[in-house]
Amino acid sequence: MGEKMGNLRRTIMCGELRPEHDGKEVVLMGWVQRERNLGSIIFMDLRDTTGIAQIVFDNTVSSEVFNKAEKIRSEFVLAIKGKVRIRQSINKEIPTGEVEVLVDELKILDESETTPIYIKDDDNVSESMRLKYRYLDLRKPSMQERLKLRAKTAKVVRDFLDENSFIEIETPMLTKPTPEGARDYLVPSRVNPGEFYALPQSPQLMKQLLMVAGMDRYFQIVKCFRDEDLRANRQPEFTQIDIEMSFVDIEDIISINEQLLYRLFKELKGVEIDLPIKRITYNEAMERYGVDKPDLRFGFELKDISDLVKNCGFKVFSGAIENNGAVRGINVKGYGDKFTRKDITALEDYAKTYGAKGLAWIKITEEGVTSPIAKFFSEEEFTNIIERMEGEKGDLILFVADKKSIVFDSLGNLRNEVAKRLNIIDPNDMKLVWVTEFPLFEFDEEENRYVAKHHPFTHPMEEDIELLESHPEKVRAKAYDIVINGDEMGGGSIRINNSTLQKKMFSALGFTEEEAWDKFGFLLEAFKYGTPPHGGIAYGFDRLIMLLSNTSNIRDVVAFPKTQSATCLMTNAPTVVSHKQLQEVHIQTTKNQNI
Amino acid sequence: MGEKMGNLRRTIMCGELRPEHDGKEVVLMGWVQRERNLGSIIFMDLRDTTGIAQIVFDNTVSSEVFNKAEKIRSEFVLAIKGKVRIRQSINKEIPTGEVEVLVDELKILDESETTPIYIKDDDNVSESMRLKYRYLDLRKPSMQERLKLRAKTAKVVRDFLDENSFIEIETPMLTKPTPEGARDYLVPSRVNPGEFYALPQSPQLMKQLLMVAGMDRYFQIVKCFRDEDLRANRQPEFTQIDIEMSFVDIEDIISINEQLLYRLFKELKGVEIDLPIKRITYNEAMERYGVDKPDLRFGFELKDISDLVKNCGFKVFSGAIENNGAVRGINVKGYGDKFTRKDITALEDYAKTYGAKGLAWIKITEEGVTSPIAKFFSEEEFTNIIERMEGEKGDLILFVADKKSIVFDSLGNLRNEVAKRLNIIDPNDMKLVWVTEFPLFEFDEEENRYVAKHHPFTHPMEEDIELLESHPEKVRAKAYDIVINGDEMGGGSIRINNSTLQKKMFSALGFTEEEAWDKFGFLLEAFKYGTPPHGGIAYGFDRLIMLLSNTSNIRDVVAFPKTQSATCLMTNAPTVVSHKQLQEVHIQTTKNQNI
Repeated sequence: MGEKMGNLRRTIMCGELRPEHDGKEVVLMGWVQRERNLGSIIFMDLRDTTGIAQIVFDNTVSSEVFNKAEKIRSEFVLAIKGKVRIRQSINKEIPTGEVEVLVDELKILDESETTPIYIKDDDNVSESMRLKYRYLDLRKPSMQERLKLRAKTAKVVRDFLDENSFIEIETPMLTKPTPEGARDYLVPSRVNPGEFYALPQSPQLMKQLLMVAGMDRYFQIVKCFRDEDLRANRQPEFTQIDIEMSFVDIEDIISINEQLLYRLFKELKGVEIDLPIKRITYNEAMERYGVDKPDLRFGFELKDISDLVKNCGFKVFSGAIENNGAVRGINVKGYGDKFTRKDITALEDYAKTYGAKGLAWIKITEEGVTSPIAKFFSEEEFTNIIERMEGEKGDLILFVADKKSIVFDSLGNLRNEVAKRLNIIDPNDMKLVWVTEFPLFEFDEEENRYVAKHHPFTHPMEEDIELLESHPEKVRAKAYDIVINGDEMGGGSIRINNSTLQKKMFSALGFTEEEAWDKFGFLLEAFKYGTPPHGGIAYGFDRLIMLLSNTSNIRDVVAFPKTQSATCLMTNAPTVVSHKQLQEVHIQTTKNQNI
Repeated sequence: MGEKMGNLRRTIMCGELRPEHDGKEVVLMGWVQRERNLGSIIFMDLRDTTGIAQIVFDNTVSSEVFNKAEKIRSEFVLAIKGKVRIRQSINKEIPTGEVEVLVDELKILDESETTPIYIKDDDNVSESMRLKYRYLDLRKPSMQERLKLRAKTAKVVRDFLDENSFIEIETPMLTKPTPEGARDYLVPSRVNPGEFYALPQSPQLMKQLLMVAGMDRYFQIVKCFRDEDLRANRQPEFTQIDIEMSFVDIEDIISINEQLLYRLFKELKGVEIDLPIKRITYNEAMERYGVDKPDLRFGFELKDISDLVKNCGFKVFSGAIENNGAVRGINVKGYGDKFTRKDITALEDYAKTYGAKGLAWIKITEEGVTSPIAKFFSEEEFTNIIERMEGEKGDLILFVADKKSIVFDSLGNLRNEVAKRLNIIDPNDMKLVWVTEFPLFEFDEEENRYVAKHHPFTHPMEEDIELLESHPEKVRAKAYDIVINGDEMGGGSIRINNSTLQKKMFSALGFTEEEAWDKFGFLLEAFKYGTPPHGGIAYGFDRLIMLLSNTSNIRDVVAFPKTQSATCLMTNAPTVVSHKQLQEVHIQTTKNQNI
């Protein structure tokens, strides 16, 4: 039914009750976490967003209140008034465990049916049930803490950027579709029949235009959209901390972002990270870790043995090098005894998912060296390989021979996988690294041309500009990623602010001038009127919160997330809509139609 | 061409230069506002986001730098190094007017073609040019100040709400289409063919679900979307300060919002508003001002003379009352001599745009009373009317006779118009008022049924609940608007948290239970599991910034706004997209097709 609060007003939050309140009259409001009826006395745990308080109904104090309390079940919403007293049996598990409130006034503000999921952190219910009943799932303290951490992180970011003269500026959500349009969410226009907006994949062009506009330092915590096949940790809409500055080069951007990161880890994790943050070039990252987002919390670095095996009798190795490939290995130092042959086969299967054809290995134990490939090598070759890999007793050495991209990809990921299986990673260890000097281009096999690795406005490194036409593959970009514990948390670049260089860039990408204007006309037009040197960075805000709250599930840091098939199980969005609605925006669906 | 900054780094902003910097070497970067070449000396105004600094090139100091400077035109981007010195002729118009910088190092970071619009506030260029070259328009100091004010306002709001335990929580942009769907922007789904998301018109349901989830105090500064015919001061996407609280009634919400408003006006306008803010019921607002968002900066209140004229000989008046209408007037006290007959005819034309059939009037001057309607009344009737209207020498009294809604609408708007024409409104005068006790329903002529004036979850006033079935038109809502200077800045309500009452509400709206579940199923399902009393408010953020920055053009407070036909003149969004893109999201356009 639901009683009214009337004149009752909350005087304190459940989680704030302490022995110092002994004897004080308080009003609490919240949900019943559980109730135990002992016959003439009823104990209840009352929950609000700050925690749990024990409240007591005593038949000898007021039978009227007691009788009403007997009807109360879990998740009823109550307002109670009563006196705080010290508990007889103290509960040291919760901060309010030394006190309880003896109720003398009770209002049942709302009743509750039995909830389809339990309101507790370790309920083991399926994620689809959690998403369907998200409003119940969000009652769990862990979920509320994550949303609070998310809000607090945004606050710290905004405070820091505000102190440093950055202006938060809102850019449009209804934007122009991008030229290729892959990944764009389209929005039909009612007023302009047959025309479409796109939801922004990022405010990249807008923030550059704000620099042209002289806004000097811009930021925004902003929703972005990508309509793509959703991997485990993606959402169709995600949040970005977007930053852009004028009159800067790489060092200026890195420097202010290091201060931002310092502040974030200090205020949210209580961790003081070392400044300056370590840096590694893209090439070094690939050579040593096989990936461009290395996890530096453990060793097992890649080593190249190509020169040692190029003429060896083992065709798998020498053949790979003949085909312009490479042979590299990692030494799982000191953990050899953790891997049985069966485990190694499992690792091989894992490596194969990244394209490796197999996994060669050497294990060094007290008893000597075991290796299925030993027989293919001369003793000198084998000794040289072990020496190069710094092999010692207790080690397991793993090799992949293939074309370079597969060697890097499979060994780089295998390196992470091995550390994960060994369970040697401390989740509270924070290892930050800037990855710099990314290639400006990458070759798109499908389109058979170079495409911009970041975007076509990324500035090449000065010393590589002369290579733009002759050796585009060698040109490095003024681009940088901040990688934390093997995850790319953010990335950015210095942008081109010079039309001659921009033209060279488009030509390297294979665009005619006309095509370039077709695609980016309004930006090129803007660049005619005095563009400052500028650059910026964007952080994945959801990923940052995942890191700060130690979860690997992006849906744990989003209030109302979508599933991997981009649906909302709570509201059932997306849904079919009426023909009339479609007609009003001048479209029809092609579902079940031959087109 | 564009030189590089090299090792030059900005040491101070242009607008910060003061006499205390005399003799100091500084590096400035910015745009050339204007240049004056006096032959052997060149003066330039260099502009950045903080202001203007005068820089000087002297041929006798460095002819190399001087020669380079001779090529510089307006809006070139420069980096200069030089010594600050006191000017010979001081410019008191600008804060940096006492000093200048004698340049000894110059880098032309980028050149500029002649800009299509001038970079100055009073350029008189058409708004469409301003929107097309928005990045140039935004170089104007007034535009930058507005965007800074907008950012600062958001910061003050966030700081205040954070201090008061509100958690900022992001709600989805890709939501479920609303049942009727009018005004929804639809977004086709790639993954779910034939299905659509909608962009949120407001996070109303989500914020209520966050209260069900026990988040206690929520807020968000959030983009909302309405696809409707755009009036002058609307944008298809707009920003809302959205707030919701649990365990509260009207007074609690009004109280914390008054503190928020106090803080806003104090920090952003330097004005201390009086607390508590005046309140007026909806009925009183209509009776006295004819509108539900009264401007209290001037008088001219409506007065009812229906009882005096119901039996009079003037058929226009008595007939209106016979038809269940009314006759009301306003007294433009003391300003009678400002209105000629021609002016009064213009006012009549204005009133007619709100449905009035005519405008009767009485003017009282030194010479006596002038009125085209005097002849229709007995002397006693006429005296009574003037007495009721408190008519004195110098007054102009204006009347409308019609059905009540037209009387209110035309006289209420006429009242505002008269004040505007008299130019008696001080734009710095801030008159805030809460309008309360709104009707819960309004009758929708088109649908021939009652519809919710706010939304179907608005709580009726307790004492009116019994009228829900018998006299829905009499039921008042626990709803409130904050009106500032005649504009509705925000509004909200206490929500229903009781399923019995909710059912009554739906039944009053003419929904069957099935229809109600169809439309709002997930919210009704949520309400089964313990819903706290809750309510909230939403402010129009764009309107608030317009008020704080004294502009009546919403496009002046949005970085990249749309036109009234919902297009972006800078990017040309929306645009046609390729057949392939439409195919991927399973739609086709119906433009130029017979459907």
